[in-house]
Amino acid sequence: MNNRRSSPATAGKHPAPAASPWKASHERQRDREVKRDAVIRAAAREFNRKGYHNTSLDDIAARLEVTKPTVYYYVTSKEQLLFQCFVAGVERIRAAFRDVRRLERPARERLNAVLRRYGEAVASEFGWCMVRAEEQDLSPAMSRHIKALKSEIDHGIRRLIREGVQDGSIHPCDPKMTAFALAGALNWIAHWYREDQSLSGAQIAEAFVTVFEAGLRPRANAAQLATPRAPPRRRARRALGALAR
Amino acid sequence: MNNRRSSPATAGKHPAPAASPWKASHERQRDREVKRDAVIRAAAREFNRKGYHNTSLDDIAARLEVTKPTVYYYVTSKEQLLFQCFVAGVERIRAAFRDVRRLERPARERLNAVLRRYGEAVASEFGWCMVRAEEQDLSPAMSRHIKALKSEIDHGIRRLIREGVQDGSIHPCDPKMTAFALAGALNWIAHWYREDQSLSGAQIAEAFVTVFEAGLRPRANAAQLATPRAPPRRRARRALGALAR
Repeated sequence: MNNRRSSPATAGKHPAPAASPWKASHERQRDREVKRDAVIRAAAREFNRKGYHNTSLDDIAARLEVTKPTVYYYVTSKEQLLFQCFVAGVERIRAAFRDVRRLERPARERLNAVLRRYGEAVASEFGWCMVRAEEQDLSPAMSRHIKALKSEIDHGIRRLIREGVQDGSIHPCDPKMTAFALAGALNWIAHWYREDQSLSGAQIAEAFVTVFEAGLRPRANAAQLATPRAPPRRRARRALGALAR
Repeated sequence: MNNRRSSPATAGKHPAPAASPWKASHERQRDREVKRDAVIRAAAREFNRKGYHNTSLDDIAARLEVTKPTVYYYVTSKEQLLFQCFVAGVERIRAAFRDVRRLERPARERLNAVLRRYGEAVASEFGWCMVRAEEQDLSPAMSRHIKALKSEIDHGIRRLIREGVQDGSIHPCDPKMTAFALAGALNWIAHWYREDQSLSGAQIAEAFVTVFEAGLRPRANAAQLATPRAPPRRRARRALGALAR
């Protein structure tokens, strides 16, 4: 990510890599992160496959071909592992919120960008943990933490909906019910999606955003709207009828 | 329901109620159905509240203030009870499909009618069992039955979507992904809805159908479409821009 060794621009300014204990430490840190990430992913896959209660740390260690103490080097308990799986998935959605904050675009477009990343996160290996972690028997502190993160996401979606209604990019609606409908459809992906399906997570997220965008109604033909005096085709006339209803 | 005793039109044609053993049997049958229904509802509420595995037939009997053998008179096992709760909820959706079959309306309207009843069913006491029964440890035969009923509902929704695309009442879309998005949003109601909330199941279903209908985009103003040469207002101009995108 930020490995200066390979950067010619800084090569002359720093001692050779082998002589730098700081770089070695940095590498060790990175190595640890990569391995910790592998433990969390392996756990997510096992929880998906067998459920949280039916999965042991031994199963996860076996999956990684390491010993249980090795797994314990990265996490303190199975509970913490579930929590980390939840966080890993939800963090992708939080990152999406951060990214769109910088965009100077109508709120509906920013919301769609978040919903796409939300859908991809739920279709990832972390999906099961994201939508089911709260129901497991976790410590009260961990449950509170999970609830708080879910609430943050929910309120982030509602806020973008409200902003969209204000900037005119979203039709006036009940932000809470609309957020529940959108997030519910996306959360449910974890109940049916398997990685071996023909569509990728990104493709599913895109299909869902298309439904959320304009709904089931036939769209008024764009060309038709631009040149309203041209005789409307049958489909377009129907669409206009539907909009007037 | 079909109690002839109270009908003046048939009063003279039949012997007095007390003399009719058939009517007494009919009443007994009805009484049995009412009580069986009460057992299923009580079970649904307990499963909702404590989860399937944490609920015993004793809990359900206690809730009804009867003995466990009384509960066994109506169902043979807790497993069968969960299955009956699932069926009771899903039957409401199946009834909606049967009802709309008779309507000579565009498919989108028929679909909306089904989705409203679907939402109400998931917000009912049977919601938890409807969306979670499949995950419990049920017999293979029962699991197959549940999967088959879910598949029937899913394919019913897809069929109405395809019909809507054909009759022009639904914008061309992927019927499978669209059905998953709609049903997922509705299924998720069981994860958050509690009967003590301010909105009724019917109100939530209506709010969701509104989102599914036309999505997030601002609607082109109907009057604006009817008189396209009038100078568009700011909001309407934005809406047209969005449609043209």
